[in-house]
Amino acid sequence: MKLAYYNFCPFSRALRIALLEKNISFSLDILNPWESMQEDIVVSPVGNIPVIHDEIDEHRFRIISAAAAYEYLEDGYHDTTLYGEEVLIRAEVRRLISWMDSDFFHGVSSKLIEEKIIKRLNDTAFPNSIAISQAYAEIPYHMEYIDFLAGKRKWLAGNELSMADIVAGAHLSIVDYLGDINWKDYPHAKEWYLKLKSRPSFQEMLYDNIGSIIPSSSYRDLDF
Amino acid sequence: MKLAYYNFCPFSRALRIALLEKNISFSLDILNPWESMQEDIVVSPVGNIPVIHDEIDEHRFRIISAAAAYEYLEDGYHDTTLYGEEVLIRAEVRRLISWMDSDFFHGVSSKLIEEKIIKRLNDTAFPNSIAISQAYAEIPYHMEYIDFLAGKRKWLAGNELSMADIVAGAHLSIVDYLGDINWKDYPHAKEWYLKLKSRPSFQEMLYDNIGSIIPSSSYRDLDF
Repeated sequence: MKLAYYNFCPFSRALRIALLEKNISFSLDILNPWESMQEDIVVSPVGNIPVIHDEIDEHRFRIISAAAAYEYLEDGYHDTTLYGEEVLIRAEVRRLISWMDSDFFHGVSSKLIEEKIIKRLNDTAFPNSIAISQAYAEIPYHMEYIDFLAGKRKWLAGNELSMADIVAGAHLSIVDYLGDINWKDYPHAKEWYLKLKSRPSFQEMLYDNIGSIIPSSSYRDLDF
Repeated sequence: MKLAYYNFCPFSRALRIALLEKNISFSLDILNPWESMQEDIVVSPVGNIPVIHDEIDEHRFRIISAAAAYEYLEDGYHDTTLYGEEVLIRAEVRRLISWMDSDFFHGVSSKLIEEKIIKRLNDTAFPNSIAISQAYAEIPYHMEYIDFLAGKRKWLAGNELSMADIVAGAHLSIVDYLGDINWKDYPHAKEWYLKLKSRPSFQEMLYDNIGSIIPSSSYRDLDF
């Protein structure tokens, strides 16, 4: 299996962690999403990374879009579940995934990635400070809810690590790279994130060498 | 089962059609999303309708967020599948759902619902003509891809009706209510949509009486 991967894409990060948690062997094909002629980006009008390349009985195919790829890993590789066994837990996992990948992404992470990372790496435009302020204004509301869940449960969706933790951790890892989370205000969330980032599946990602933008001091720290 | 439902919400529409296609008995609890104190809207910080209320062994619970609710119907009521039996078909169904519920919703349907429906029903603000133009500009690109898929396959994701058709049809039904689809430019999409809207699961919704905004002439027409 091959994962088309962009370092600052929360969906790519979530899939990479999920593949490691499920012990599936894979290689990374590292892309730059702004180089738009790359095959994996133009493969479909839907046009999203991440893309998974896989093979069943010598038939090679692509799985496109994050939601489809998360579920594909569950459907196709069910020795280890990341959704839980019970219908209600599965619904809770999916509710939280959708909250992060839709609300948090549109409200926070996509704006910070565009303004603070892509524009800087591209060096073609100034960051839009209004978009950055809008993103900052939405962080506390999301962090408070994660703090609430983390205080009530062992993992975000229940007693077991699930895709909800992985997706939330993937988004937060990018915001944390930029130093934009005040962890001291969210003690339960901090403890949960520390537990998550200590896992080998998460650690590998934190040590990627990703160019000219320096991570915050807490990014790799396990005692932040 | 009870479905919290808003007439002009594509997610509510998709769930209602799916419930009918799966022969699950349910009642509709019709809401106005701008009346923000309603219990189903404030139940969670995620705050999305639609919400499904269901019961297993006398335990009552809610399923919140569209993506979680679609999958819940598949997980909990699997006599009839709306995702297909094969892993690759299921991935294709989910890719198309995510394309419509994320790209089409953010680019087209949410803008038209806000500007042309909610603002008019609320009578508190003028429609933003820039947002409407942005939505119009994105319609052809999406319709061309639906036309392409409908010309190549019997249904959008393959040989069987799936949740991808239902979700796409739910979004398009709202845009079509407003008269904003030039069906003559997309003959395969038109034929596919006609087949979809002729189903009893879809028909019931088209005959709802929904207040002061008059549907386009083609909205209920089976020979448009």
